[in-house]
Amino acid sequence: MVDLSPRTRSGFAAPQRFEADVFDCDVIGRIPADLEGMFVRVGGDPLYPPKYEHDSSASSDGYISAFWFHDGYVDYRGRYVKTERLLANKAARRQRFGVYRNPFTDEPGVESIDRTVANTAPYAHAGKLFALKEDSLPYEIDPVTLETIGRYDFNGQYKSLTFTAHPKTDPFSGEMVCYGYEATGLLSDDLFVYTIDRTGQITREWRLKVPYVSMMHDMALTQKHILFPVWGYVTSMERLKAGEVHWGWDDKVPMYMGVLPRDGDARDVRWIKGPPGRAIVHTVNAWSEGDKVYLEAPMFTGAPFPDFKPIDGSPWDPAKAKAYFTRFSFDLSSKDGSWSEERLFEIPVCDLARVDDRFKTVRQRYAFTHYHDPKLPSDIEFFQGKPRAMRNCYGRFDMTTGEIDSLFAGPTHGLQECQFVPRRPDAEEGDGYLIGVANNYKELRSELIIADAKHLKDGEIARVILPFRAGAQIHCTWLSAEDFPQLRTR
Amino acid sequence: MVDLSPRTRSGFAAPQRFEADVFDCDVIGRIPADLEGMFVRVGGDPLYPPKYEHDSSASSDGYISAFWFHDGYVDYRGRYVKTERLLANKAARRQRFGVYRNPFTDEPGVESIDRTVANTAPYAHAGKLFALKEDSLPYEIDPVTLETIGRYDFNGQYKSLTFTAHPKTDPFSGEMVCYGYEATGLLSDDLFVYTIDRTGQITREWRLKVPYVSMMHDMALTQKHILFPVWGYVTSMERLKAGEVHWGWDDKVPMYMGVLPRDGDARDVRWIKGPPGRAIVHTVNAWSEGDKVYLEAPMFTGAPFPDFKPIDGSPWDPAKAKAYFTRFSFDLSSKDGSWSEERLFEIPVCDLARVDDRFKTVRQRYAFTHYHDPKLPSDIEFFQGKPRAMRNCYGRFDMTTGEIDSLFAGPTHGLQECQFVPRRPDAEEGDGYLIGVANNYKELRSELIIADAKHLKDGEIARVILPFRAGAQIHCTWLSAEDFPQLRTR
Repeated sequence: MVDLSPRTRSGFAAPQRFEADVFDCDVIGRIPADLEGMFVRVGGDPLYPPKYEHDSSASSDGYISAFWFHDGYVDYRGRYVKTERLLANKAARRQRFGVYRNPFTDEPGVESIDRTVANTAPYAHAGKLFALKEDSLPYEIDPVTLETIGRYDFNGQYKSLTFTAHPKTDPFSGEMVCYGYEATGLLSDDLFVYTIDRTGQITREWRLKVPYVSMMHDMALTQKHILFPVWGYVTSMERLKAGEVHWGWDDKVPMYMGVLPRDGDARDVRWIKGPPGRAIVHTVNAWSEGDKVYLEAPMFTGAPFPDFKPIDGSPWDPAKAKAYFTRFSFDLSSKDGSWSEERLFEIPVCDLARVDDRFKTVRQRYAFTHYHDPKLPSDIEFFQGKPRAMRNCYGRFDMTTGEIDSLFAGPTHGLQECQFVPRRPDAEEGDGYLIGVANNYKELRSELIIADAKHLKDGEIARVILPFRAGAQIHCTWLSAEDFPQLRTR
Repeated sequence: MVDLSPRTRSGFAAPQRFEADVFDCDVIGRIPADLEGMFVRVGGDPLYPPKYEHDSSASSDGYISAFWFHDGYVDYRGRYVKTERLLANKAARRQRFGVYRNPFTDEPGVESIDRTVANTAPYAHAGKLFALKEDSLPYEIDPVTLETIGRYDFNGQYKSLTFTAHPKTDPFSGEMVCYGYEATGLLSDDLFVYTIDRTGQITREWRLKVPYVSMMHDMALTQKHILFPVWGYVTSMERLKAGEVHWGWDDKVPMYMGVLPRDGDARDVRWIKGPPGRAIVHTVNAWSEGDKVYLEAPMFTGAPFPDFKPIDGSPWDPAKAKAYFTRFSFDLSSKDGSWSEERLFEIPVCDLARVDDRFKTVRQRYAFTHYHDPKLPSDIEFFQGKPRAMRNCYGRFDMTTGEIDSLFAGPTHGLQECQFVPRRPDAEEGDGYLIGVANNYKELRSELIIADAKHLKDGEIARVILPFRAGAQIHCTWLSAEDFPQLRTR
């Protein structure tokens, strides 16, 4: 029999490559009838294989999929995000673009084509759904068809060339704070920050300079401040011209925390210096108390991703690619900001942690994420060929008491980022549902877990069975039928 | 972990339940550039599980899928056939219809809804594509979108309430011969036969009576005669009222071969009596030589399907459910027709055998089908739980010399019906491609094999890799871009 080419990789990690619709998904258990809306996922699925072997999975084409909850039923739909790049590749039937965020590695003739793959996060604001990636503008998506409407620049008001995958919405005002780094072009040290009101109008712009150009993947928002972590993924024209991926790891550069007062001007930003060797890819939440600012985030003490290698040529260290929930605090009344860190749990977690979004910007109690519990049974060796430490549990982490309530997904399952959905708009913090996708490696299919977020240890309420493996997810979100009334009549 | 309900069966045989599109399928090898057209499959995929456990898979909802070949590339699309029944079930979100071809087992309120699931065969004639099942009229399908246009009655000219899944087209005149049995209603002994010219106009109708009501699944056509096998699957009002599936096996009733002269009238039909205990579900081909008529067909010597049980209460006998290529001959100059049978090969084959369709109605040399070669390696036990005798080879059976040229699909693969596609319109018999789907049980995915029909033992030319298991296929066909020019510009 013939060998399988890279294009036809086998197993769960093989590219999905298809668009699909499922009417009335199979369900074990019962879907709560008060769940009305849509669980949306965005991830990367390479329609064509990378042009270069050393490319990162960050270059995989964006794919958006959704589980639509209505009347106790669930339908599924999955579509590629029709980026300019995907359409150009489809027309040529090959990968025309080189390695991650490095246009020098592209084939000639694609210079005018947006390079983004829009594969990182779905985000909803002012009645619009976006697929986001930090290297370009948002792609607007039709929430019913999941077809791509096109790139979106907020009616020309948004001037940065890039838009973060992780804006933050102030749940009290409905205002979205967002930003773009490398805002004026490749390697530029410009950071443009915007506020966009609940109707979608841009209301404010700040133009900042960063201490050095780094991967500013996420931010945090308090009622008074906007926080920008800057840390060790760095880049340079030399590495780009040498054909490398955009980022390399530098464990010598210090971390910085940018702190911008929401009511201040660009000149009011402070860049508080921290130690080197830290990485905060994603934040959990932040809050301000007088002159103090607190940030909770999973922190790595080394390079998080194997794809972005150390610039000094040393090997990537998987032992340091473990994230621990950490509380940072900064005293803005002190001259140096008094950087301080406190580890909150001794168990490493997936750094894709979520909170009850109604308590963003103020101190919250619970964070939710998936993690590996090595004490639980595992039965995937036979299929994967070698044992893997799958993230087998969703956990509710009590950031105050240190308690963990958790749900085990099954011995052949690995989990992806979860979403908290409040039971009612006025429910107390953490009263609602936890929703997330499990990869069933044995059956080569995806399963959506719906659990009571207050009772994870009781197991799930329902599990939606997809008859196939849904492609890789990076981030997810929830669109409520209240915010998207078209989901009631879809 | 919860138990899986019947609705959520695992493994390859689980319902597919999704509609899918793949752009530019992965291919191992190289698609021949002269293959321009579409390989179309129809099978059954139950959107909702059967209402009764004793129902047959013959009740599974029709699903049509296609591999579109153009410029050396292949795209895939799969859609449910949107029968009246499927739409009614979707609206109610449950199975409203009872067992196979027995309206007495339906829930009240569906009496006016067409019960067919249109799950048996695709067929193309006069520029139209149909999904067929013998219990109702054709459903017309858009060959580009695969969406269902609706039931088709040939502009009201077709009077039978049923239409076979296996019409035959005379390749020399382009005329299609088709029929419906139980033509005037449930259990009726009416057989209506039609000719439909190459433009789609009905040109002739015969109204016949059958010796007894039986499953007349297939027919055969020569230049002079139309053949109708009648054999041991029988039915009755008693069994329908008792809630049974339409058919039961009676090994006491004789087989009959109806022989209707194409230039004769209804009264000219002869019903030649044969022995009991025979089954010919599908024919291969037939031809006339003077007063003699020959039919080649895989013949069973017992009930072919476990779903349709013996009426005497005895257990279904899998040993008799084996089909062997058999040549029947009838001498129309003799009073009794001189029924005779000759076994052509000693190896059992799947009875879904095909020929080069350009040689239908005249004597052809080759038949193509899949079969199990027990000498070849098998490696699916670990996945299926128990060893199974998979049909692991496509064979070209030389009906003249008894030679078999064959292609092995792989140790973890099971095959489905294949299609012969001539290399050129004027190529000699058997010069072309053999195309068919293999189930890869290990990787839980479907693979389309494209082989040179003259050189099967050399292995395939190309293999198209689907990233999922495509649902069950019953029959397939080929739409040439010549007959369907919209496939050139799709």
